[in-house]
Amino acid sequence: MTTKTLTTGTVAAEATAAEADSHPAPYVHGYSDTEAQRLGDQADTLAELLHAGTVYPAGSRVLEAGCGVGAQTAHLLAASPGVLLTAADVSAESLAQARARIAGVAPSARVVWHHGDLHRLPFPDGTFDHVFLCFVLEHLPDPAAGLAALRRVLRPGGTITVIEGDHGSAFFHPETPAARRTIDHLVRLQAGAGGDALLGRRLYPLLTAAGFADVTVRPRTVYADGGRPALVDGFTLRTFVAMVEAVRAEALAAGLTTPEAFDRGIAELRRAAGPGGTFHYTFFKAVAVNP
Amino acid sequence: MTTKTLTTGTVAAEATAAEADSHPAPYVHGYSDTEAQRLGDQADTLAELLHAGTVYPAGSRVLEAGCGVGAQTAHLLAASPGVLLTAADVSAESLAQARARIAGVAPSARVVWHHGDLHRLPFPDGTFDHVFLCFVLEHLPDPAAGLAALRRVLRPGGTITVIEGDHGSAFFHPETPAARRTIDHLVRLQAGAGGDALLGRRLYPLLTAAGFADVTVRPRTVYADGGRPALVDGFTLRTFVAMVEAVRAEALAAGLTTPEAFDRGIAELRRAAGPGGTFHYTFFKAVAVNP
Repeated sequence: MTTKTLTTGTVAAEATAAEADSHPAPYVHGYSDTEAQRLGDQADTLAELLHAGTVYPAGSRVLEAGCGVGAQTAHLLAASPGVLLTAADVSAESLAQARARIAGVAPSARVVWHHGDLHRLPFPDGTFDHVFLCFVLEHLPDPAAGLAALRRVLRPGGTITVIEGDHGSAFFHPETPAARRTIDHLVRLQAGAGGDALLGRRLYPLLTAAGFADVTVRPRTVYADGGRPALVDGFTLRTFVAMVEAVRAEALAAGLTTPEAFDRGIAELRRAAGPGGTFHYTFFKAVAVNP
Repeated sequence: MTTKTLTTGTVAAEATAAEADSHPAPYVHGYSDTEAQRLGDQADTLAELLHAGTVYPAGSRVLEAGCGVGAQTAHLLAASPGVLLTAADVSAESLAQARARIAGVAPSARVVWHHGDLHRLPFPDGTFDHVFLCFVLEHLPDPAAGLAALRRVLRPGGTITVIEGDHGSAFFHPETPAARRTIDHLVRLQAGAGGDALLGRRLYPLLTAAGFADVTVRPRTVYADGGRPALVDGFTLRTFVAMVEAVRAEALAAGLTTPEAFDRGIAELRRAAGPGGTFHYTFFKAVAVNP
């Protein structure tokens, strides 16, 4: 579902200095206002599904790695208002938006905003009780390295919570080749940017290989049909189709499709939100412990 | 997931006479003892997932349409021991196995075994309080006609419960083209036999179009990784891979693949049950009311 890139990008740090990368990777979804709005809609629709079960005790030191524009940050703080949160992102612009968002919805929250790369966090080993990241690993060229860096700053016995989508879980009715191809374009573009839009299914082996223990991965499935009009609008149309539609220019620039073919695919994808249409998507939520 | 064919097949009836079809459709999974064992394993592993929430009051007149070898019948009766069950199937052999199974696990259950086609049930309109069918619609050339026939024998205000899989929901890690093709073969063979292995996503429009009201469809997702060894064995290997593997001869006969390619695909599919492997599948369970 993809909301931010922590992979490379220009890097600095509020609290301390950090190395700058010279070749920022492209963020497949862009950084526009429309994109920020899409991410907000998405987070609201999905909040209950994704955040259920994530409650941190007051006073816990929590790191949100890759907070992006703060869409998930708001829900994290709503569920755990007493935490001492460090919210990190590689994009200064996203971080500024996140800060403004949280100032509006949770003005009394205790948040340190950290501008920097999650691979090189300037915090001592074991700084945090809990680490949370949502739609971040899918953008990393080496998610195993990202997890290792996060494990370093997590204290022994602390937990990591990771939420990811998997576009291979998307199927719908009616389903057409042209509609399917628009999703494939997004998967290819994300792979071209060094990410993996099919990462959800890999959470268990990634966390296990990174040395985490008690790895528990649960699917969180979204299914929308005519009996759930709010979900059809909020998820099928305004989250999923909007996300696919947003890569139109990039897909054209990459020579993956033509304007006519892409637009036809999007029109056919939208039929999954029309009368008799259905749409299915599975997120994965993993919780594991740093032994 | 596919356990029986009610589409055509030789038809007779215990309680009354019924027309015989002259051209039985092939049952993609066959009727062997191994197949019966597979269906038993499958039903046990999935029972809790699929049957949760289905409890009928004592004395209810319930029709199970397409009981097959009784795999689901046993769970239905375990959850609702007091019902007056009519279990129907188009295969006399399957029905005999179902009868023997239920005699063993629920000897005091009140069951009328009906050998016949669900499209031509010899019961008056509104005979049943509830209708239940699991992995049946996916085999019907015209599932809408099947639902219409079942609605006829359901009383106004009665419920229908329909459970179906959708092979488009299968994704796994590691995923390879050869492994994916073995699943595609099964989908094509089932389509060739007049069925639809991707039917789960269509339950909502099918039930709505058939005139049912209050249609509620919920996904029931199976996800198996190294943290759930019983599910890896019971579902990934002994249910899903076994089901795909069982169409080997038919896929070869149809010229869809070669022995080498099929066996390599199965070997690669099995890696989803190995170290670091994961497997995902979504069933759909629909409940609706006859208005």
